[in-house]
Amino acid sequence: MRMNEGDYVHGYSEREAERLGDQARTLTSLLHSDTRYPAGSRVLEAGCGTGAQTVILAKSSPDAEITSVDISLNSIRRAEARVRAEGITNVTFQAGDLFSLPFAPESFDHIFVCFVLEHLSDPGQALRLLRSLIRPGGTITVIEGDHGSAYFHPDSAEAKKAIRCLVRLQREAGGNALIGRELYPLLVQAGYADVHVLPRMVYVDASRPALVEGFTRQTFTAMVKGVRDTVLTRELMSPAEWEQGIADLYRTCEPDGVFCYTFFKATGIV
Amino acid sequence: MRMNEGDYVHGYSEREAERLGDQARTLTSLLHSDTRYPAGSRVLEAGCGTGAQTVILAKSSPDAEITSVDISLNSIRRAEARVRAEGITNVTFQAGDLFSLPFAPESFDHIFVCFVLEHLSDPGQALRLLRSLIRPGGTITVIEGDHGSAYFHPDSAEAKKAIRCLVRLQREAGGNALIGRELYPLLVQAGYADVHVLPRMVYVDASRPALVEGFTRQTFTAMVKGVRDTVLTRELMSPAEWEQGIADLYRTCEPDGVFCYTFFKATGIV
Repeated sequence: MRMNEGDYVHGYSEREAERLGDQARTLTSLLHSDTRYPAGSRVLEAGCGTGAQTVILAKSSPDAEITSVDISLNSIRRAEARVRAEGITNVTFQAGDLFSLPFAPESFDHIFVCFVLEHLSDPGQALRLLRSLIRPGGTITVIEGDHGSAYFHPDSAEAKKAIRCLVRLQREAGGNALIGRELYPLLVQAGYADVHVLPRMVYVDASRPALVEGFTRQTFTAMVKGVRDTVLTRELMSPAEWEQGIADLYRTCEPDGVFCYTFFKATGIV
Repeated sequence: MRMNEGDYVHGYSEREAERLGDQARTLTSLLHSDTRYPAGSRVLEAGCGTGAQTVILAKSSPDAEITSVDISLNSIRRAEARVRAEGITNVTFQAGDLFSLPFAPESFDHIFVCFVLEHLSDPGQALRLLRSLIRPGGTITVIEGDHGSAYFHPDSAEAKKAIRCLVRLQREAGGNALIGRELYPLLVQAGYADVHVLPRMVYVDASRPALVEGFTRQTFTAMVKGVRDTVLTRELMSPAEWEQGIADLYRTCEPDGVFCYTFFKATGIV
């Protein structure tokens, strides 16, 4: 099964677009500060969604020629509006399926893939297809999260169960919310050379209030809350258990709380 | 309950001493490279064990006056032999209980505590007592692991269960194998100022063979294997389940495997 709009586990609401925007701002430096493409290089952003990362990518590499594609026309429209509002002019948008992109082999110097593979039922095949679009010597950069990397203080069985529900629903939609830890074998098996993975751990305690708000509350907990209706309708958790789990995630935002999560950033060469 | 020799979950065998030595060598740079004490400063290493960290500490701060204490006379003897074998002369050893150390208030400029709090039933009280031994303006440095930070590819229910057995046995012995994530609130509540926690994540894939061997195999998996007899005697897992769990930990050392673990390093000021 491949992903279509209806399967996207995070949904497409306004609030979701806001959440992705908040996430992008808080994590920009951690995830993206070391990604810069030279002037004139042809860069494909494969799976741009509503453009949260597109803006960062385009600003960091203002003289690269960026092509951003997504399977959802609705997302593309929002990404275009967002990029236009920022006065960015080096991005071209195009709707398209990652598994049948309308580009000739070796059309790009570099490909950038962020928070996309987690939603695909065959990420290895996607990486192989993308490899054919990169010229020899070009690179791929992949960034993914891993919900199994989330742990916190105080610990909570209900909060962990709520997170496992999100992982399960994403798997049922054909994706893999634990994909971050797999980037190394995925890229090696897809034929990339010099594969290098650098984990980017988000560590949050009360001495880092921007992350308490921007990551623990508005990114991670908001994302878990996004599957509430499905979890309750399908009775994966009781309403009381669910509310306890969410309350316990917020509890980690108190002055004595701690929250940990790790993103994985991988690069490979063709 | 406080820790005594019989309770120490890792045991005191020769193999265990080797394991701690291997661990120290592989992780030295990750954990210790930013700990340096000035010439003439009085440093207390609280809980030196068999001296694996003592050697690193003494070499990194060759002109500091280090006092290393441990509750186990047997460990002290081995630590002394190890330090002597390295030609180190700036360490004095002393047997003593962390909860009743024979030092006057404000006797030290700095205190260093590594892989110790995880074994104590009241780490907060230990941190308060240690604080009284530090002069105003002096610092504490604490390093602890967190077994709940371990995740890997391929994932394995049996390997996770084996790790949970280790966590449970350490808790039953009065300790806490998940203490790394709690260092921030523990130090703040013990009255330290400017508490700063930096996680030190160990990410292991086939491109890092020294860590595959030195960390995944010889440190983490060896540590889990150390509780085998207790787990089987108490029937916490069946022998078949246990062997599968250990085999699955070794499986993460294959070319397509990945292993993640995070240590936490905290500093605070008096």
